[in-house]
Amino acid sequence: MFKIHTKQGRQSIRRSFLGVSRNLTTASVTPFPKKYEKFSLSIPVIKPRFSSIPIPVFQPLRNQSSASKTRDPRFKKLELADVEYFRSILPPGSVLSSPEFKGNSTEQDLLPYNTPVYTSEVGHAQVVLLPTCTLEFTVTLEPIVPQGGNTGTLAGSMTVYDEIAINMSKMNSIRSLDENAGVLVCDAGCILEELDKKLNDHGLCMPVDLGAKGSCHIGGNVSTNAGGIRLIKYGSLHGSVLGLEVVLPNGKILDNLSILRKDNTGYDIKQLFIGAEGTLGIITGVSILAAKKPKATHMVIFCMNSYEKVLLTFKKAKEHLSEILSAFEYCDATSMNITLDTQNKHNTFKKKHNYYVFIETGGSNQQHDQEKITDLFEDLQGSNTIEEGIFAQDSAQITKLWEIREFMILSHNKIGDTYTLDLSIPIDTADKAVQDLKKFLTESKYYDESLPVTNDKFHVKCVTGFGHIGDGNLHLNIVVDKYRHEFTELLEKFVFEYVKNLKGSISAEHGIGLLKPDFLHYSKSSEAIELMQTIKKAIDPKGIMNPYKVLP
Amino acid sequence: MFKIHTKQGRQSIRRSFLGVSRNLTTASVTPFPKKYEKFSLSIPVIKPRFSSIPIPVFQPLRNQSSASKTRDPRFKKLELADVEYFRSILPPGSVLSSPEFKGNSTEQDLLPYNTPVYTSEVGHAQVVLLPTCTLEFTVTLEPIVPQGGNTGTLAGSMTVYDEIAINMSKMNSIRSLDENAGVLVCDAGCILEELDKKLNDHGLCMPVDLGAKGSCHIGGNVSTNAGGIRLIKYGSLHGSVLGLEVVLPNGKILDNLSILRKDNTGYDIKQLFIGAEGTLGIITGVSILAAKKPKATHMVIFCMNSYEKVLLTFKKAKEHLSEILSAFEYCDATSMNITLDTQNKHNTFKKKHNYYVFIETGGSNQQHDQEKITDLFEDLQGSNTIEEGIFAQDSAQITKLWEIREFMILSHNKIGDTYTLDLSIPIDTADKAVQDLKKFLTESKYYDESLPVTNDKFHVKCVTGFGHIGDGNLHLNIVVDKYRHEFTELLEKFVFEYVKNLKGSISAEHGIGLLKPDFLHYSKSSEAIELMQTIKKAIDPKGIMNPYKVLP
Ligand SMILES: Cc1cc2nc3c(=O)[nH]c(=O)nc-3n(C[C@H](O)[C@H](O)[C@H](O)COP(=O)(O)OP(=O)(O)OC[C@H]3O[C@@H](n4cnc5c(N)ncnc54)[C@H](O)[C@@H]3O)c2cc1C
Ligand SMILES: Cc1cc2nc3c(=O)[nH]c(=O)nc-3n(C[C@H](O)[C@H](O)[C@H](O)COP(=O)(O)OP(=O)(O)OC[C@H]3O[C@@H](n4cnc5c(N)ncnc54)[C@H](O)[C@@H]3O)c2cc1C
Repeated sequence: MFKIHTKQGRQSIRRSFLGVSRNLTTASVTPFPKKYEKFSLSIPVIKPRFSSIPIPVFQPLRNQSSASKTRDPRFKKLELADVEYFRSILPPGSVLSSPEFKGNSTEQDLLPYNTPVYTSEVGHAQVVLLPTCTLEFTVTLEPIVPQGGNTGTLAGSMTVYDEIAINMSKMNSIRSLDENAGVLVCDAGCILEELDKKLNDHGLCMPVDLGAKGSCHIGGNVSTNAGGIRLIKYGSLHGSVLGLEVVLPNGKILDNLSILRKDNTGYDIKQLFIGAEGTLGIITGVSILAAKKPKATHMVIFCMNSYEKVLLTFKKAKEHLSEILSAFEYCDATSMNITLDTQNKHNTFKKKHNYYVFIETGGSNQQHDQEKITDLFEDLQGSNTIEEGIFAQDSAQITKLWEIREFMILSHNKIGDTYTLDLSIPIDTADKAVQDLKKFLTESKYYDESLPVTNDKFHVKCVTGFGHIGDGNLHLNIVVDKYRHEFTELLEKFVFEYVKNLKGSISAEHGIGLLKPDFLHYSKSSEAIELMQTIKKAIDPKGIMNPYKVLP
Repeated sequence: MFKIHTKQGRQSIRRSFLGVSRNLTTASVTPFPKKYEKFSLSIPVIKPRFSSIPIPVFQPLRNQSSASKTRDPRFKKLELADVEYFRSILPPGSVLSSPEFKGNSTEQDLLPYNTPVYTSEVGHAQVVLLPTCTLEFTVTLEPIVPQGGNTGTLAGSMTVYDEIAINMSKMNSIRSLDENAGVLVCDAGCILEELDKKLNDHGLCMPVDLGAKGSCHIGGNVSTNAGGIRLIKYGSLHGSVLGLEVVLPNGKILDNLSILRKDNTGYDIKQLFIGAEGTLGIITGVSILAAKKPKATHMVIFCMNSYEKVLLTFKKAKEHLSEILSAFEYCDATSMNITLDTQNKHNTFKKKHNYYVFIETGGSNQQHDQEKITDLFEDLQGSNTIEEGIFAQDSAQITKLWEIREFMILSHNKIGDTYTLDLSIPIDTADKAVQDLKKFLTESKYYDESLPVTNDKFHVKCVTGFGHIGDGNLHLNIVVDKYRHEFTELLEKFVFEYVKNLKGSISAEHGIGLLKPDFLHYSKSSEAIELMQTIKKAIDPKGIMNPYKVLP
């Protein structure tokens, strides 16, 4: 029953992300003082704004462990009688199935439930349940795959054999909003962006923000412990999720939907489900602490000639901007050059630099925030830390500046097939990691840095580094002429070993899903993996909850 | 072997907290503009500064479930041979024991390991181990009680029968500090205040701060998921703890000591140990994300005539102060009057008010912060929300203003025996809870609000509410002529039922320990408790890790 589909149909799903915009224009921006005018932008806004989505940071692994997973023999085969039973209990329209199970859904109809984005695999769910309330879940004690918006990048929401897909999209009501306390309680199927809009009306915003927000569910965000572009400001979901309602593998409903900021009565069991990627239970309700929506947003790019100065800028940014710092990204020369080249934005900077940082602030007072930023600028300039700086003078310019950062992977892709590894390592080692990989690939005769990126003499065209450096999250990119299996293996082994030696993470924010369980040991000790397996077995002894995922 | 000791000796331990000071004087404060001078203080600083400790919010429960716990028959009796074995393996000085186990520690010597503060019980550990490194733990597969600074208020660190106490005080080294990333890794036995001082030298501070900081260990803070006075700013330890090293009940060492902000590889198992009160493993190492130390601290008190205006002030404070708001406390008229009366501070306010809020800010720019506070003040005054306001003009005045808040429980205690219940409920219900309890006690003929608090006609002298209202943490206080068992039962039943109906928490920050397992069901569903028990059984099948605690 395990079948690889063609990619047809994926395009239309992916396109829906393109509509997602950062919504920055809602924040009003007053220009910086006159003397900073010379630092403003001359480049035009690019249209269409592909840049409004963070670009995919996952590339299909060539040796996908999923393909070799054998069907768990403990599971009975899904039969027509099961599906008839669901039909008899669930409201009309809640059970989709192929004609094999007496439904009228075509393969095309079921495709949206079988195509997680950015993976080369396609699932084969023939039965999809769309429950409308928590109680309805208790009917399904078969192997199941919880599905949010299917935007996860590691095929975690994909069926592998004949598991039933349970898609949460019909459970999308807001249950309550306590404006004073800033606490939102909602169904797990609510779409992140819609929740954010609802909160915006009350001067609040969601404490997580990511490019897929127009499609992903809050239940999916919680299940993947999504990081997103403003983690540096809002912290992790482990801190902001206050409570969860979960259907457990034994069919019982765990009502842990607390609305309290403080509650030390027993183990904080909701934490287990945050980031469990649906392998311990189906999240049906979420209680979350909203953040205050910033009244002012600002954005600058600074340029420097060494990575040490990137680190120094980060330190000074934390000092001057402190509580208003909402994003701190960096990129190296090659990634910037590729982007400026392919986007034809050569005149953005007066000259070329070795490193660039993108800084965004979100605060409650326009003028105070500007003063803090200009203080930072003067400190950096006075200490010869930076070579050049650009200040966005209005929200259109903020958008323009972010575009550079957001077009980066697409620009790499234009040169060749691109591996983008999503790593967490100590921030002072990020640039060294890029250099060490270059050395390794040069020694392995795959790469020669002295050649232009457009060369076709070597397999590797370039190696670059950029990312959410404020969180220690490095995107390590390798552009090659063409994906090749043996190179993938060599690369992964080197990089994952390297990350392991630094006690880093081989998956900073995207999780493990179906594709990475075999690599888990690079970031977690055998005792840790054993403990995860102990917990999985204790909570889901029959292994019916999202089988084949996360744990090896 | 279960014995209740006299309280003698407790006093000296408790006294050590009194030296702890808030350390506010390190932040420089410039005066507010001239026109706010009229709002400054005239009251003198009180000496000695008892106020520097948050006052105990726990009162011994009369019907302590602990007393009725029977010894777990699965445990073998601790024998001399076991202790000799420890002596043969552990370094000299690491094994303390009574003469019964061939040691030379007197009862008095062992008292510090047998007297958790603020409980009426005293433990009877005759064997205390003081390991100096993580490896040394693997020798103890007996029932054990992990001990930090013994400042927990629910007897969680107390031995009940012949368990071995493992005290962490000798494991107190800092392992590493990454200044750029703000990540501290240290032994679990490090004292909170010492860590904070170390970080202060680098412009950082610990993301948790509480009155017991001079004695409590970071391992104890993590194990109790301590909240503390600035949770509103730093969030919970579930967000700021990055990794833990834990000795598991099976003797294996779990190295989960990540230094990464982002790591989504498998279940986030460290979360389980945060707040588990030592019942799942012994925490030996902690990795934590430090906060930026605020460069400026300010403090104001505002007075209003209705609780609705307290809520409105909170809303406006969040709007104006947003990212710099570091504390928001409230109190009602009675608690303020009692405090001003007993402290002889009648001239603090021009007149009496129904409600008071204490607001503190911590930011990176003195002048900006003052502007934000004065904007808030003008908004509150303009909208007739407040009747009066006091601005601290320097750090001495900040101390003075905090004293009022911090003396509150002591002031209640001067009038009579005081129950202080540490509850989490939705913030808009806090004042109603106080009023409803008054009504109930009046109907039960225990109370007459029309009489002065000094009356001795009724059992209850007064009912008051104050607390960390910004976090929804209410301290509900009932002053009586004398603790009486049947009244305690009546009170607990009413309040805990009331809290349950509001989906609140019967223990906002202090945990469950030895004293509250029987009340857990008031805040957690049977499914949740069952899941906790499943986890306990899976990780600690023999139940040797801090037995008799947390779970019913
Ligand atoms: C354009 C784009 C940008 C992205 N940017 C970021 C980013 O900046 N940061 C980041 O961390 N991630 C990012 N991602 C990936 C991110 O993990 C997902 O976008 C999102 O968090 C997943 O939500 P979803 O509802 O789509 O979940 P799905 O993809 O449907 O599912 C993801 C996993 O969670 C499980 N799951 C889903 N819903 C539930 C539920 N209700 N109960 C139990 N389990 C459930 C699934 O079984 C699966 O294992 C991005 C993805 C895209 C496409
Ligand atoms: C003056 C005062 C003020 C306080 N203020 C606050 C406050 O504002 N907010 C708040 O939340 N609490 C407060 N508390 C209580 C708070 O729980 C403790 O002060 C502190 O967090 C406990 O740390 P400790 O090292 O003393 O732990 P202990 O009291 O020694 O132990 C507490 C629990 O943790 C376990 N434990 C300790 N160390 C370890 C370890 N290394 N591994 C595994 N388990 C361990 C113990 O077994 C026990 O169950 C206050 C207490 C006092 C005395």
